[in-house]
Amino acid sequence: MGDLKLDITMSLDGFVAGPNQTLEEPLGAGGARLHEWVYGLATWREHHGKAGGETNVDDEVLQEQLAGSGAVLMGRRMFSGGSGPWAEDPNAGGWWGDESPFNVPVFVLTHHPREQLELKGGTFTFVADSLEAALEQAHAAAGDRAVMIAGGADVAQQCLRAGRVDEVQVHIAPLFLGGGVRLFDNLGGEPPSLEVTRVVESPRVTHVKYRVGR
Amino acid sequence: MGDLKLDITMSLDGFVAGPNQTLEEPLGAGGARLHEWVYGLATWREHHGKAGGETNVDDEVLQEQLAGSGAVLMGRRMFSGGSGPWAEDPNAGGWWGDESPFNVPVFVLTHHPREQLELKGGTFTFVADSLEAALEQAHAAAGDRAVMIAGGADVAQQCLRAGRVDEVQVHIAPLFLGGGVRLFDNLGGEPPSLEVTRVVESPRVTHVKYRVGR
Repeated sequence: MGDLKLDITMSLDGFVAGPNQTLEEPLGAGGARLHEWVYGLATWREHHGKAGGETNVDDEVLQEQLAGSGAVLMGRRMFSGGSGPWAEDPNAGGWWGDESPFNVPVFVLTHHPREQLELKGGTFTFVADSLEAALEQAHAAAGDRAVMIAGGADVAQQCLRAGRVDEVQVHIAPLFLGGGVRLFDNLGGEPPSLEVTRVVESPRVTHVKYRVGR
Repeated sequence: MGDLKLDITMSLDGFVAGPNQTLEEPLGAGGARLHEWVYGLATWREHHGKAGGETNVDDEVLQEQLAGSGAVLMGRRMFSGGSGPWAEDPNAGGWWGDESPFNVPVFVLTHHPREQLELKGGTFTFVADSLEAALEQAHAAAGDRAVMIAGGADVAQQCLRAGRVDEVQVHIAPLFLGGGVRLFDNLGGEPPSLEVTRVVESPRVTHVKYRVGR
């Protein structure tokens, strides 16, 4: 079985989305700035069917992450659009439209049973049973490759509390959001231990990888 | 005038002290682990009159910080011991005893006027007027060298909100505290911008330095 990995961009003040999430700003005020480091990268563009783009250390980090990933786990609010208003609609589509940007099977943890969704770029399976059931299905789909927790913070926290995460890679964006959704919150009484395994420096974002203890 | 620098160790979940601060654990549950990276270093030991110790990248970072610092600014609760019970006593001594570990003049921001304290290793001046007054005195003492904000979080936040901080160096410790005193909180409606200027990788702690915009 592959590892369960959390790979996520966080502001220096610990947020994965800014305050006041709306339809126009599903990542909250200023939250879109978190991901600016990624859009110009060659690997990101290739993943979205576009040519060109930058090849730098950030690109290498992204490439490694995508190449190692065999399935994605996410929460329903991430699937249906941050915590925007339509996140409350259990039948809403994915906010990226008809084409999945993930290129691997995606498992959405939700309380609302729903039929599998076939998108160009990958199948979305909705798992309403439990985190354990979602993880089991995701690992089965991923085989020896990793299951990547795409977010949101709530799913990441559930996995950390359950002691199921093997690796955390945090891309620390050089900005303060000043409020919003905290990534490392509600970790339970005895959070797991961490060991730094790699740091990649870049002007845009600091990539720090940790092995997670039990 | 020298720069105003914040140089502080933070857990990956953003805390500079753990939960439930007590006399026995002034840094809260698990909080002392934040600073484990520093105690074995040659520069730290030399600073405390001891020989030996490790010389590694962490030591270089510490050495650079101390060499560049001409004065220290701190809050009263840090002076009198984290947020432990005796932090409420405006006449309490510094919790490190009769010898200052700073070796430069220290300015303590407090609401309680108090006479200057001469310790081996440096003078402590208590400034009850305002943050601006404390900064003015600290910069005058530091000359061309930097004024280092030693903490706690509250003083750091006051300086950030006032737009006075020039540089932030965060030593990100590979651990979760799960609660306690958050460093980057209450930053006000428009937090300053950040630019990554240097990252130093080490197995013990990740040193990330930022230039702070206005």
